[in-house]
Amino acid sequence: MEFELIRLASKIFGAKREDVIVGAGEDDCAVVRVGRSNLVLTADNLHEKADFPPGMLPEEMGHMALAVNLSDLAATGAKPLYFLYTITLREASKDFFVRVLKGMKALAEKYDVAVVGGDIDFGDELFISGFAIGTADRYVTQSGAKPGDKVCLTGLLGKAQLSLEQLFSGIDRNEIAYPKSLFTPEPKINEGVEIARHANAMTDISDSLAVSLNLIAEKSKVGIVIYEDILPLDHLTPYVDEKKALELFLYAGGDYELVYTSSQCTHGFEVGEVVEGSGVWIEGKHGRNKVEFRGYTHF
Amino acid sequence: MEFELIRLASKIFGAKREDVIVGAGEDDCAVVRVGRSNLVLTADNLHEKADFPPGMLPEEMGHMALAVNLSDLAATGAKPLYFLYTITLREASKDFFVRVLKGMKALAEKYDVAVVGGDIDFGDELFISGFAIGTADRYVTQSGAKPGDKVCLTGLLGKAQLSLEQLFSGIDRNEIAYPKSLFTPEPKINEGVEIARHANAMTDISDSLAVSLNLIAEKSKVGIVIYEDILPLDHLTPYVDEKKALELFLYAGGDYELVYTSSQCTHGFEVGEVVEGSGVWIEGKHGRNKVEFRGYTHF
Repeated sequence: MEFELIRLASKIFGAKREDVIVGAGEDDCAVVRVGRSNLVLTADNLHEKADFPPGMLPEEMGHMALAVNLSDLAATGAKPLYFLYTITLREASKDFFVRVLKGMKALAEKYDVAVVGGDIDFGDELFISGFAIGTADRYVTQSGAKPGDKVCLTGLLGKAQLSLEQLFSGIDRNEIAYPKSLFTPEPKINEGVEIARHANAMTDISDSLAVSLNLIAEKSKVGIVIYEDILPLDHLTPYVDEKKALELFLYAGGDYELVYTSSQCTHGFEVGEVVEGSGVWIEGKHGRNKVEFRGYTHF
Repeated sequence: MEFELIRLASKIFGAKREDVIVGAGEDDCAVVRVGRSNLVLTADNLHEKADFPPGMLPEEMGHMALAVNLSDLAATGAKPLYFLYTITLREASKDFFVRVLKGMKALAEKYDVAVVGGDIDFGDELFISGFAIGTADRYVTQSGAKPGDKVCLTGLLGKAQLSLEQLFSGIDRNEIAYPKSLFTPEPKINEGVEIARHANAMTDISDSLAVSLNLIAEKSKVGIVIYEDILPLDHLTPYVDEKKALELFLYAGGDYELVYTSSQCTHGFEVGEVVEGSGVWIEGKHGRNKVEFRGYTHF
């Protein structure tokens, strides 16, 4: 449903002005031309019931709100510059508010992002919307993948969802496998800027590798084949069986790694290749099977 | 409480980079320098229970989400260029979503604003956060008012709140006094850009004239005197008595007019003057009385 609505929005706001290079719903970010700069713009919405794992600290909520937006900029190869947020608080607690902002600030300082604005109000559920602005000399979209490209990943997948499932099964947050992946995922800012120098297509993995690759395949009008025997699952198999590990790797979200296609995997490792045709496929001991357009980030 | 939290946020994000000219919580918008352009940035959050009057149409919600952000840009004297939104829908209704976006689009086209991005999810309450970007050669803040300046208003006040109170008293939305002020307020975009050429201080009136003038007085370190006998109340007195009309004019919000201080009132009319000292005062048949720091936009 979400993707259907995005397509609708893209149609409604489709007529583009000359200065709008990448418009609404087309990609991870919009790209517009102001003066001599390519401005890269993105907006992301988080709310308690859908996006914050149980037991998440206020500092981690602030971190997360900024991280998901920076990850979109990274996916386009942009250097982040500015961030604004809107926040709806459940209670007029100064302490809670300050802790959210401190989490945001710590991540902002790490990547030299200036938090320049915010809007605060009160309601029944905690909401944080974020808006990030960056610049890019060369930006990369989801639509440039070419047959012959390698498909590369900046890091391991499935860690956030594995940790979330452990949390839901009653394991304490100090005992889950990858708490950092779940509570304070790191946007791949520097990697994104460097990869953008050579990649033909790129996106981040917020929903799942499956969703990201299907978007690249669809928009680039190519096929993608993933090779099962080169997918690293060793970080998952101590906790789940191999079938579940593969499911997590392909269909789980929340790790905020980058997937890109290029002639070379300069960052991270290779998982497959771009081919003529359409669709996303996994080749392994069970033959060649379709990788479906689905993910599960929200709980 | 909201203003206290804004001050806290301003302190937390206070250390400014060289390219940040007006930072978090300082004014209606942030102003940053990218290349040779002054980018003007703002974010505003609206949600159903606090910001949308009963019976508001989806198109009007879309209009409102964009209008409040454009009004902030107008208050800084910026020409609007781009808009992004995040929306949380209560139900997966394509029709509702499309109507919200069409309302947004109609206003966007009127002022040549490109809607370049959005994020869509689902929850228990309708939320729309907006993020607007503009540019300004000369921008105006709340902190430049000078003793001797005239205090000017671009239009009449109290119409939105009067109409809201009529609605709550059971009057049909087709019969209330100023439905356009309540449901589709018009941001003063062109006025803002023109006024910015000469004004010393400016802001929009989202909460109330009282809040806006107190912010200008506080940040400009001046006093402001409003003259009761020149305040136009004729648009309110057919519906309420004179005391209530004055209360609405001073303390009601939602009309999204601009208030500015300058040597000349080029747009709209004069309501008072900037003086040495501090505080906001109203001078009239009951002598000189303090204009309190309060408003009531939310219901």
